[in-house]
Amino acid sequence: MTVQYFEDYAVGQIYHSGTHRIDKEQIVVFAKQFDPQPYHLDDEAAKNSPFKGLAASGWHTAAITMRLLVGGEFRPAGGILGVGFDQLSWPRPVRPGDELRVTSEVIELRPSKSRTDRGMVRVQNTTLNQNGEPVQIFTGNLIVPRRPAGGAAQRY
Amino acid sequence: MTVQYFEDYAVGQIYHSGTHRIDKEQIVVFAKQFDPQPYHLDDEAAKNSPFKGLAASGWHTAAITMRLLVGGEFRPAGGILGVGFDQLSWPRPVRPGDELRVTSEVIELRPSKSRTDRGMVRVQNTTLNQNGEPVQIFTGNLIVPRRPAGGAAQRY
Repeated sequence: MTVQYFEDYAVGQIYHSGTHRIDKEQIVVFAKQFDPQPYHLDDEAAKNSPFKGLAASGWHTAAITMRLLVGGEFRPAGGILGVGFDQLSWPRPVRPGDELRVTSEVIELRPSKSRTDRGMVRVQNTTLNQNGEPVQIFTGNLIVPRRPAGGAAQRY
Repeated sequence: MTVQYFEDYAVGQIYHSGTHRIDKEQIVVFAKQFDPQPYHLDDEAAKNSPFKGLAASGWHTAAITMRLLVGGEFRPAGGILGVGFDQLSWPRPVRPGDELRVTSEVIELRPSKSRTDRGMVRVQNTTLNQNGEPVQIFTGNLIVPRRPAGGAAQRY
């Protein structure tokens, strides 16, 4: 699959990713390192929490989402280079055994005013479980290079 | 340190975390698993990227930030339970050798209308490097239980 330049994007385009199955071991390993709270570490403690059962750290879901994006169809030249994002939400827990995938919709294109070689692409990324239910939604603001003059490959 | 209930928070309060020093190995290990793009994996490739040198994945910075929050002074009863957040930005790269810490400022308190046992605390979390420069800023929306009647400890 070839990479995409700013000119290749249009509002409304939808890109898909592969899938990633998360299991209890992954959830606990990530939580021990980055989010050691009982409902991400221990089945029994999680039962008595608002999650009512073991759930992945939201930051784990975010990291898996990034991995799926990097391997997916949305492939801007220069990489997926985010300067930040808006309004991330985790509408429901991610459980052991869930199979996650991401759909990415281009929602806005903004040429850079100061740099003529790039633009900003706003992409809404929805992470879904195996039932098609969203587990994470966020809008990323990505810097994407414009197609170089003459069509030569650009080392970005 | 005792945990904090919704009633214990006030707009303007600032909480601090400990520190975490990130090195090249951590950056590469995280990137291989979750964000395998050249500027997070390889010094030479990173030199020719917009980062102009090896930089941590933003999601790695986010995960370290969560780890610092969990170990820090901001300690709501029931844990740091985010339903999402607004406007995360990564204003500058995180480099090997950077020492990160987080300051958290309470910016809004919103009692729940539907659930009398909890409220929403909005907290702006700024992750700083050893020079006091922000490397990540986001506003989290956290669910925090109210202090139980009679002061008894509540298993949340």
